[in-house]
Amino acid sequence: MYVVVNAAQSVDGKLSTRRREQLRISGEEDFDRMDRIRAAADAVLVGVGTVLADDPHLTLDEEARRVERLRNGRPGDPARVVVDSTGRTPTDARILDDAATTYLLVSAAATPERREELSDAGAEVIVAGEERVDLLEGTGALAEAGVDRLMVEGGGEVIYSCFAAGIVDELQVYVGSLVVGGRDAPTLADGEGFLEEFPRLELTGTERLDDGIVLSYGVEGRA
Amino acid sequence: MYVVVNAAQSVDGKLSTRRREQLRISGEEDFDRMDRIRAAADAVLVGVGTVLADDPHLTLDEEARRVERLRNGRPGDPARVVVDSTGRTPTDARILDDAATTYLLVSAAATPERREELSDAGAEVIVAGEERVDLLEGTGALAEAGVDRLMVEGGGEVIYSCFAAGIVDELQVYVGSLVVGGRDAPTLADGEGFLEEFPRLELTGTERLDDGIVLSYGVEGRA
Ligand SMILES: NC(=O)c1ccc[n+]([C@@H]2O[C@H](COP(=O)([O-])OP(=O)(O)OC[C@H]3O[C@@H](n4cnc5c(N)ncnc54)[C@H](OP(=O)(O)O)[C@@H]3O)[C@@H](O)[C@H]2O)c1
Ligand SMILES: NC(=O)c1ccc[n+]([C@@H]2O[C@H](COP(=O)([O-])OP(=O)(O)OC[C@H]3O[C@@H](n4cnc5c(N)ncnc54)[C@H](OP(=O)(O)O)[C@@H]3O)[C@@H](O)[C@H]2O)c1
Repeated sequence: MYVVVNAAQSVDGKLSTRRREQLRISGEEDFDRMDRIRAAADAVLVGVGTVLADDPHLTLDEEARRVERLRNGRPGDPARVVVDSTGRTPTDARILDDAATTYLLVSAAATPERREELSDAGAEVIVAGEERVDLLEGTGALAEAGVDRLMVEGGGEVIYSCFAAGIVDELQVYVGSLVVGGRDAPTLADGEGFLEEFPRLELTGTERLDDGIVLSYGVEGRA
Repeated sequence: MYVVVNAAQSVDGKLSTRRREQLRISGEEDFDRMDRIRAAADAVLVGVGTVLADDPHLTLDEEARRVERLRNGRPGDPARVVVDSTGRTPTDARILDDAATTYLLVSAAATPERREELSDAGAEVIVAGEERVDLLEGTGALAEAGVDRLMVEGGGEVIYSCFAAGIVDELQVYVGSLVVGGRDAPTLADGEGFLEEFPRLELTGTERLDDGIVLSYGVEGRA
């Protein structure tokens, strides 16, 4: 499986304000770039923190891209994936509508009742891990379900865990021209943090878009 | 006074690890760029957090730059400034040696005894603000002392306050090709964080250095 992480951050690495309110960091050009990456993916993954904060839909904006996918014998929209240990995703979340398949990666900490509620609401529930979701195991199950190319859209907790699990092949980050600040605001990579062995990247490209810049990286040690 | 903020961060906006241990984010080319900015400055400012974490010296690396400054009738090294409300800077800190003038911006919360100890240790103590250091007042006093060009080197708490005080004209940030992670690691701009009126920047230049990239910004609303 090939994993690309994509996010938009302020110059100081923030994905949103300390109130975790969604923030317009980029503009139309970047939204289009993101839609293109989505269109190329078999599935788009977010953490339950993002579902609760933003209630995203994660489908394609551009109808032409949907048509093109269908023409190639693929589903019109990529599948959606939520990383959600205990099943906190609301059953009326937009991500659970029938616009596309939605996988819910839960852990053994999700009760059987909750799993059933979520699968009644339309989710394909996959159990991976004991306390928290085990991303290596979870993405392994997605690969078996046919996901070859996975896009990770955030937030910072899940992105950190993806790097910690060593599953990231590529990072694309839009750096917007503003300062958000806040020692408690979510950043591109939160979690515990690395102390010694840092994931090393290779800067493969830069592109100015809207009022900011997209930095593209490959991850060292991944073929 | 013209204020330029310079820092080195990981892709995810971190200035160091959550242990606040100094971290080599850039390399020789970037150190040289930083030394050039220092050489052009009348003073280099850091917060007491950085003094306690890194015990920096903040003088010039390149002897030729020192000679050039002296030839122009300036002090060999820029003055050093610590933002330090209660005077926590150790009297044996490297920043207090006699390589250059050192201003200590304290607040009224610093006891007269502590102020005296620090001035005995060689610091020029300036009182600005009641609880914390008032940066507008403090930099006003520096301007009166002849500081026309100020370089701010961090850390994230002080950089945030400089943006909040509206005194920043330019930001140069080296983005290194690694992920540090950590919801508690210091970022380029910490503090409380902005919620509505975000400092807006204009991306004026990009330069690839070492294995990363320098992003240069002007601050909107500053002539
Ligand atoms: N600018 C952008 O590009 C962008 C993109 C996405 C999100 N955002 C912003 O980011 C914020 C949300 O980010 P976030 O970091 O709080 O949440 P998040 O990464 O979306 O979700 C984190 C949650 O996922 C669950 N989880 C389960 N297993 C995990 C594992 N192995 N590793 C990590 N998390 C795991 C945890 O909750 P449980 O323990 O309950 O399972 C955890 O709290 C919002 O403010 C949103 O607006 C911005
Ligand atoms: N990568 C880089 O370019 C770079 C550069 C510098 C530092 N660093 C790293 O950054 C970390 C230190 O950063 P930090 O954010 O913890 O500390 P900091 O910004 O260096 O200093 C913060 C301290 O300054 C004092 N202060 C007084 N008045 C203030 C005001 N108005 N606004 C803000 N602070 C005020 C406060 O202590 P009092 O209340 O006691 O006065 C505050 O805790 C270290 O890990 C260091 O290695 C990295």
